[in-house]
Amino acid sequence: MSRPAIDLARLRADVEAVNDLGRVPGRPGVNRPSFSPEDMAGRRWLIGRMEAAGLDARMDPVGNVFGRWSAGQGAAVLVGSHLDTVPDGGPFDGTLGVCAALEAVRAMRDAGITPARPVEVVCTADEEGRFGGMLGSQAICGEVGPEWIAQARDETGRPLRQALAEAGLPPSGEGAARDLSDIACFLELHVEQGPVLERTGDQIGVAEAVTGVFNWTVTLTGEANHSGTTPMDMRRDAFRGMADFGAAIPAILSRAGGPDARLTVGQVALLPGFPHSVAGEARFSIIGRDAEEPWMQALAQACEAEIARAADAHGLGVQIDRQSWLPPTRLNDALVERLTDLSARAGFRTRRMPSGAGHDAQTFARHVPAGLIFVPSVRGISHAPEEWTEWPDIARGAQLLAEATAALAS
Amino acid sequence: MSRPAIDLARLRADVEAVNDLGRVPGRPGVNRPSFSPEDMAGRRWLIGRMEAAGLDARMDPVGNVFGRWSAGQGAAVLVGSHLDTVPDGGPFDGTLGVCAALEAVRAMRDAGITPARPVEVVCTADEEGRFGGMLGSQAICGEVGPEWIAQARDETGRPLRQALAEAGLPPSGEGAARDLSDIACFLELHVEQGPVLERTGDQIGVAEAVTGVFNWTVTLTGEANHSGTTPMDMRRDAFRGMADFGAAIPAILSRAGGPDARLTVGQVALLPGFPHSVAGEARFSIIGRDAEEPWMQALAQACEAEIARAADAHGLGVQIDRQSWLPPTRLNDALVERLTDLSARAGFRTRRMPSGAGHDAQTFARHVPAGLIFVPSVRGISHAPEEWTEWPDIARGAQLLAEATAALAS
Repeated sequence: MSRPAIDLARLRADVEAVNDLGRVPGRPGVNRPSFSPEDMAGRRWLIGRMEAAGLDARMDPVGNVFGRWSAGQGAAVLVGSHLDTVPDGGPFDGTLGVCAALEAVRAMRDAGITPARPVEVVCTADEEGRFGGMLGSQAICGEVGPEWIAQARDETGRPLRQALAEAGLPPSGEGAARDLSDIACFLELHVEQGPVLERTGDQIGVAEAVTGVFNWTVTLTGEANHSGTTPMDMRRDAFRGMADFGAAIPAILSRAGGPDARLTVGQVALLPGFPHSVAGEARFSIIGRDAEEPWMQALAQACEAEIARAADAHGLGVQIDRQSWLPPTRLNDALVERLTDLSARAGFRTRRMPSGAGHDAQTFARHVPAGLIFVPSVRGISHAPEEWTEWPDIARGAQLLAEATAALAS
Repeated sequence: MSRPAIDLARLRADVEAVNDLGRVPGRPGVNRPSFSPEDMAGRRWLIGRMEAAGLDARMDPVGNVFGRWSAGQGAAVLVGSHLDTVPDGGPFDGTLGVCAALEAVRAMRDAGITPARPVEVVCTADEEGRFGGMLGSQAICGEVGPEWIAQARDETGRPLRQALAEAGLPPSGEGAARDLSDIACFLELHVEQGPVLERTGDQIGVAEAVTGVFNWTVTLTGEANHSGTTPMDMRRDAFRGMADFGAAIPAILSRAGGPDARLTVGQVALLPGFPHSVAGEARFSIIGRDAEEPWMQALAQACEAEIARAADAHGLGVQIDRQSWLPPTRLNDALVERLTDLSARAGFRTRRMPSGAGHDAQTFARHVPAGLIFVPSVRGISHAPEEWTEWPDIARGAQLLAEATAALAS
């Protein structure tokens, strides 16, 4: 079999064309929130590009776009990502994976490759979770259906049904679930959104797992007092309890969790919140992540123990609101091996790593073999208009995606 | 000389009468912010009560009320406190000191005492600092004058001049400064506003000093990153720097500052402030207090060192906005001795202590001998409608104030 060779100029022209829809003025980023006019214009543009590439293109009832190359027989290889962005997002987050999937198909055609099974380029809807999940991939996989769609609202309270109707789609969202026996595997190319590849000097990342994540809100309750008249040993200072927990993060990570465990306190609030008042209440978020469920369990237990110890030291009450627990998702081991092998053969410095962000590949991985390829993000910046990946890195990622698609469809 | 004996029922009737002006419905507290109609009504009520007690009463151009007993000769003994409250404040904060001063004079008269020097009951204006200082006592002592008054505004931007005019006072505020050679000393009875006397079981506190206070805002600057994709060792997490500082507070206090040193972080903010984002900026207040200036200096230096260490550990930038530095005020040693002695002779369990809150006595102490007596606060609650002191404790404090006034005026 001849190898496909991607055309970077053609890929770049596609990325730049679709990013003219919703471009953030004067910055590389784009603003194409799910079901916005710009998002829908991007999807219609994609249908045109798919048809120009000889694919049978269609949009499903929730806005997923498919471009099918009905070659060979059997279950299809799905390749893609998403075109929707967070508000004022980056130019490649999702967009690269969609355009590179289309380029992979064109490169296969150019190389005279006839796949042994169908190949489908896919652009999922609402990957960024405006309505609280990964609507497009979850609908394809049958994880969410009309009942879920009927109740889903965005942060402003706007119903998903209304957003679908305004985007010209049937408000029920019914009919997006695919026969999963018709899907052989799913492949996704994505920007890393983190600093690891840049710092290590690797060119390609192959995700072994998407880390699980727990989301807690901790409330420590002490006693609000006058900062001048209350001696240190008569205080029940909720700030001090929170600080003790924060300072214990290295100790927690050294005795619990795996090598990729992460703990983040990103949101805090004190009550009454005046400089001259000892804090009577401290409320803070904990986001814990790990790549294996037992590690994640141990991490959570170590957090609980440290919170209890900090509360005890300062005479505080504790309430932990455990908002969510998403277990880690292992990606398909055989696919990880295959992608790593193909990347190494192409001469790319390759690193196996966990994915700390959620991706469509994670949804598909619960049902079919799924693979996820990363290219480096400059300074690890993500979900901001300054997100960037250098074109030579994009070329390597797209080339690997094309070779992997050809290999899996052969 | 016969001893004055205060009449608790008469004192209580006065406190309850003035607290009918601005009472918080259903709670012990009152709402008499400076220059509000309720505050001014309280001051006019006081003039009436002073006149009923045979004093020459007047209000000065900034709202201070004086009731003079023109006995004897020489400089006067001033006794008093304030009637203004914080919004929704407590029933005794200031009010007790004013009513007890009036009761002291009445008790002296009842006991047939003729003082050797004039005695003045004083009710200061805006002790609670609506306009940023202690307007009344500072104006009496010549620390603030028409220039300061012309530019002073409250938190809402309302000019002091306008508040004075609406209260029926000359907007210039000119003419409040007293000839300080006419003031022999200043005495104040106040509720402790802290938990110390209640916890130690003491009945009377004699303040030795008003602690100094520094007010800083610290900004730590790191890098906002994705909580999932950024490994722990590639973060510059501003929350972690703040937490390390908070956890180091005991170490700071063990190596710097005096026995009454206090450090409080009461206000914090993270940016961007999302649970899933590593904090790129942490901003927090530090209120440091101590009873001696060298201790306070050492405390501030230890804070700076610990902030630098925490910033260094996490790769953070540091900015410290040093908003204010008020040095400690020693109260008059001879007066402290005398008040302690009188209290012990009266059979009261007496404790020398610093004052962690600011009081009019602090202003006067910069110019004349000043003494400050505390009675216990239930649960240390202050600046809230639930502030309370038991009547037997009030009786002891008022009795000591009367005896001290008589002694100092003899």
